[in-house]
Amino acid sequence: MNGERPHAKPTLVIEYDGSNYNGFQYQPQRPTVQGELERAIGKITGEEARVRGASRTDSGVHAAGQVVDFFTHAQLSEEAWTGAFNFHLPRDIRVREAHKTTPDFHPRRDAVARTYRYTILNRDTESPLIRDRCAWVRAPLDAEAMGRGAGFLVGTHDFSGFTAPLPPGKSGVRAVRRWEVWRDGDLVLIEAEANAFMLHQIVRTNGMLVDIGKGRTDPSAIQDMTNGRIKKGRQAASLPAKGLCLMRVEYRNFPPKRGNQEDEAS
Amino acid sequence: MNGERPHAKPTLVIEYDGSNYNGFQYQPQRPTVQGELERAIGKITGEEARVRGASRTDSGVHAAGQVVDFFTHAQLSEEAWTGAFNFHLPRDIRVREAHKTTPDFHPRRDAVARTYRYTILNRDTESPLIRDRCAWVRAPLDAEAMGRGAGFLVGTHDFSGFTAPLPPGKSGVRAVRRWEVWRDGDLVLIEAEANAFMLHQIVRTNGMLVDIGKGRTDPSAIQDMTNGRIKKGRQAASLPAKGLCLMRVEYRNFPPKRGNQEDEAS
Repeated sequence: MNGERPHAKPTLVIEYDGSNYNGFQYQPQRPTVQGELERAIGKITGEEARVRGASRTDSGVHAAGQVVDFFTHAQLSEEAWTGAFNFHLPRDIRVREAHKTTPDFHPRRDAVARTYRYTILNRDTESPLIRDRCAWVRAPLDAEAMGRGAGFLVGTHDFSGFTAPLPPGKSGVRAVRRWEVWRDGDLVLIEAEANAFMLHQIVRTNGMLVDIGKGRTDPSAIQDMTNGRIKKGRQAASLPAKGLCLMRVEYRNFPPKRGNQEDEAS
Repeated sequence: MNGERPHAKPTLVIEYDGSNYNGFQYQPQRPTVQGELERAIGKITGEEARVRGASRTDSGVHAAGQVVDFFTHAQLSEEAWTGAFNFHLPRDIRVREAHKTTPDFHPRRDAVARTYRYTILNRDTESPLIRDRCAWVRAPLDAEAMGRGAGFLVGTHDFSGFTAPLPPGKSGVRAVRRWEVWRDGDLVLIEAEANAFMLHQIVRTNGMLVDIGKGRTDPSAIQDMTNGRIKKGRQAASLPAKGLCLMRVEYRNFPPKRGNQEDEAS
């Protein structure tokens, strides 16, 4: 970092195949999405930048619309940033859009909603064509019952029973807008939208929904947890990270409206 | 082969990711789908069997529903064949179904229709999530114009102008039932169904349709070729094999109806 304030802050919408990464967040000696982005910025600008992401997707989780930003002295057009990143990034990470945002925009803090999709292949045999993008469950799933269970998740609740133990003083309260389940042929899809999620919350909750789909748990078990009647559900089906994909992150003022870009550029 | 006639003929419906194979057909020293199936049969039965496929998919082409068979002395149930194959096959090839068929059933000769789907990602940037399952075309495609061009392919025509030069005496006449184009968000899908296709016919023809979608060629150019007014189209867009997938093969008597299996087993 130079003493002067960098004067451009590109914000990117990125897609990645998480199969080969130890998650989004930087870790020394291990491949991470953040690490690859920072390496690419170094090649493009010669600067050491720190990338901030909207969601710290876990190891193996994919993204169709993650949002990240960084500060830089380099002055490139939006098209030039996209082209330069996609030249330097590995093929399993792509920049879909680049926008200029004001210095106070923060991809994590300013996000008003995140949408994750979980994909389950529900048939007798695995699928070579989508094997790295879904979980495989052989037992026939009752998607309708799963949807009833998921419906109890909608609203503002304490979700600490649905995730790993929280550090002391951390709240498990989140506002879930939507948690839907539907069948599309051999696929069962679960889409969840909330202001924010806790680590492992989605995969663990969807494991409970799979148990409901198998008839091992009643949908009302979810209601008993969200209304505080019971603290923890029984040990649920364990689902792999590769079935999860961050679909999109929503903001009040991002992406900037076309035509206002000159005003909004920092 | 022993002197006696082998008395079982399992017929399989298989799915594969063609990325790592030099096509379906066996080649010494190179990975092929047929080679992997024959290796698995050797492990299961100890026999050297020759696998016959409905379609010789090209290098890099995928399949969701290829049909293959082989003769064997081994007597396994349909479930046991599926389980044994999926234990011994690499993860990018799966047996979806196994059925017993009569000795005279032939997966290639008896096929009455083959359906292939070609997937095009039509947007500014590539997609890490589906990069090995589609072609990427940046220029906006007019799927409606492509569909009009494709409509001229339906019917029984001499398609030799749409493929590589045929050996002397070989007919280019095929009966196309359906050649449809539709858009689904950023995807443009092309599905073709015919009694049979020639080598490279689908990829080359879809290259012409892409040129129509770009506005470089008029849909009527396809009509001029199918009605014999012109022999060869202009050099068309070259599309990669990885966008192509054999969706299904249809027969009059396969898969055998449930309940008749005892009668139909050889």
